Amino acid sequence: MTPPPLSPPTPPVPLPPTDFSINQMTVKQLPLPELVTACADLGIRGVGLWREPVQEYGVEAAAKLVRGAGLHVTTLCRGGFFTARDPAERARALADNRAAIDEAAALGTDTLVLVSGGLPAGDRDRDLPAARERVADALADLAPYAAARAVRLAIEPLHPMYAADRCVVSTLTQALDLAERFPADQVGVCADTYHIWWDDQAPAALTRATTTGRLHAFQLADWTTPLPHGVLTGRGQLGDGTIDFHHWRHLVESAGYTGPTEVELFNDTLWASNGREVLAETVRRYVAHAC
Amino acid sequence: MTPPPLSPPTPPVPLPPTDFSINQMTVKQLPLPELVTACADLGIRGVGLWREPVQEYGVEAAAKLVRGAGLHVTTLCRGGFFTARDPAERARALADNRAAIDEAAALGTDTLVLVSGGLPAGDRDRDLPAARERVADALADLAPYAAARAVRLAIEPLHPMYAADRCVVSTLTQALDLAERFPADQVGVCADTYHIWWDDQAPAALTRATTTGRLHAFQLADWTTPLPHGVLTGRGQLGDGTIDFHHWRHLVESAGYTGPTEVELFNDTLWASNGREVLAETVRRYVAHAC
Repeated sequence: MTPPPLSPPTPPVPLPPTDFSINQMTVKQLPLPELVTACADLGIRGVGLWREPVQEYGVEAAAKLVRGAGLHVTTLCRGGFFTARDPAERARALADNRAAIDEAAALGTDTLVLVSGGLPAGDRDRDLPAARERVADALADLAPYAAARAVRLAIEPLHPMYAADRCVVSTLTQALDLAERFPADQVGVCADTYHIWWDDQAPAALTRATTTGRLHAFQLADWTTPLPHGVLTGRGQLGDGTIDFHHWRHLVESAGYTGPTEVELFNDTLWASNGREVLAETVRRYVAHAC
Repeated sequence: MTPPPLSPPTPPVPLPPTDFSINQMTVKQLPLPELVTACADLGIRGVGLWREPVQEYGVEAAAKLVRGAGLHVTTLCRGGFFTARDPAERARALADNRAAIDEAAALGTDTLVLVSGGLPAGDRDRDLPAARERVADALADLAPYAAARAVRLAIEPLHPMYAADRCVVSTLTQALDLAERFPADQVGVCADTYHIWWDDQAPAALTRATTTGRLHAFQLADWTTPLPHGVLTGRGQLGDGTIDFHHWRHLVESAGYTGPTEVELFNDTLWASNGREVLAETVRRYVAHAC
């Protein structure tokens, strides 16, 4: 009789460095209480939360749950979507962003990540510079409200493949230029390697953001191909793609960044897997590829 | 009895301006002789050819066919793929590019479009700056060979979503910086709206390319979403997407560009349609959206 096949041994999970933070979306299959428990079990100290699951659980209850586990909320994702031209729609967007700022404050995080929005749909609007100016207008409206609640607004440039339908701010330089219209403790940037890795001007912008105190959030995801239909859910696990994380981490650290580093993956394959195992593997990958 | 439903009337096809050129890939379902006849019927004067169908037909035969119909070959697509690190692979790429230059000369076009290549596959190469330097090395090797045959090399920046697997030159500024290491009549750029429309620095780069005699090719395609799996075959018909062609045409014209404008669409839906109808519709769209 042959013995049953052995499962490959599970590699041990190293203790993550204290700056490591897991973005909730990476393991969105885990309900918030399970995420919090799993983080505690693995020694994870930081978590980036999303508004929808937090609202579903209850903002105050979520704040209590996370605080009770000794977890630090590194960011709240996300505000933004500032590009509507219709006045009523703009007013709704601003009100929703004020609510997001309140939620961030309630959760005890100092950073609200902003995805600026694409070109307004349905009216064949093709004016990118005008849409970008409407983002600046919205920031001028929201920055004092956020500052009064000790929340910083972090403009996240999204990869240029999202310029039409998701985010008209396409480079870190653009995001930083926008942020610099406001005080650094009110408006900064969120730099995600997935969105900026291709850009030969991003290293200089990242250094500038860090030294001027405007790097409010730093996120990692790897670039893998082929991109899926709709290009939203193909963010690669660290080490699976073409991004040199040591390079990017070294850049921000040598410029003086001491904040958290979040891993944020949107990935259909990971979402279809066991959430705890994905979390453990993400810690392993972080230690292997980004430390 | 009700009469049978009428087909909607086919709108007339305007005579395209003399600077209009159709890139062969837009109607790749048309064999070369049919493409040439269809161009003659519609009064199209310029065509951008691709190496593979030209080789299949025979380079000399293709040159004779196109010349006989009074068609001008505006570009040959494409050389490039310069990023291999393996010496034998690099030597093969350079030899293939010399063949492409010879084919361009035989076809009577002065412009070979270059797609530079992505990161070398299979070896976890993550060094974009080094890959970009290998592109410069290849240009240094090929530019004199091309110049001796009166062929200009046109570096085409591809959208950043292709940086890993197709083209490490991601912006028009990058392409122009590379080109400017060489004489303007030897190395320039190919600007395609699909690849550069999102970039707030592209207008200045396009003006600079034009005024310095380095805009060797100008191509149009529209940006439509959602992007398809693999993001290669979703280039939109003019007017279907978010690109303001009047803006881009005005930019190059006001900077003094008098060369051809090619429409180059890779689009599964168009490829599955009647090639002659696609060609006629492309002329209509060009006149409506880019003139």
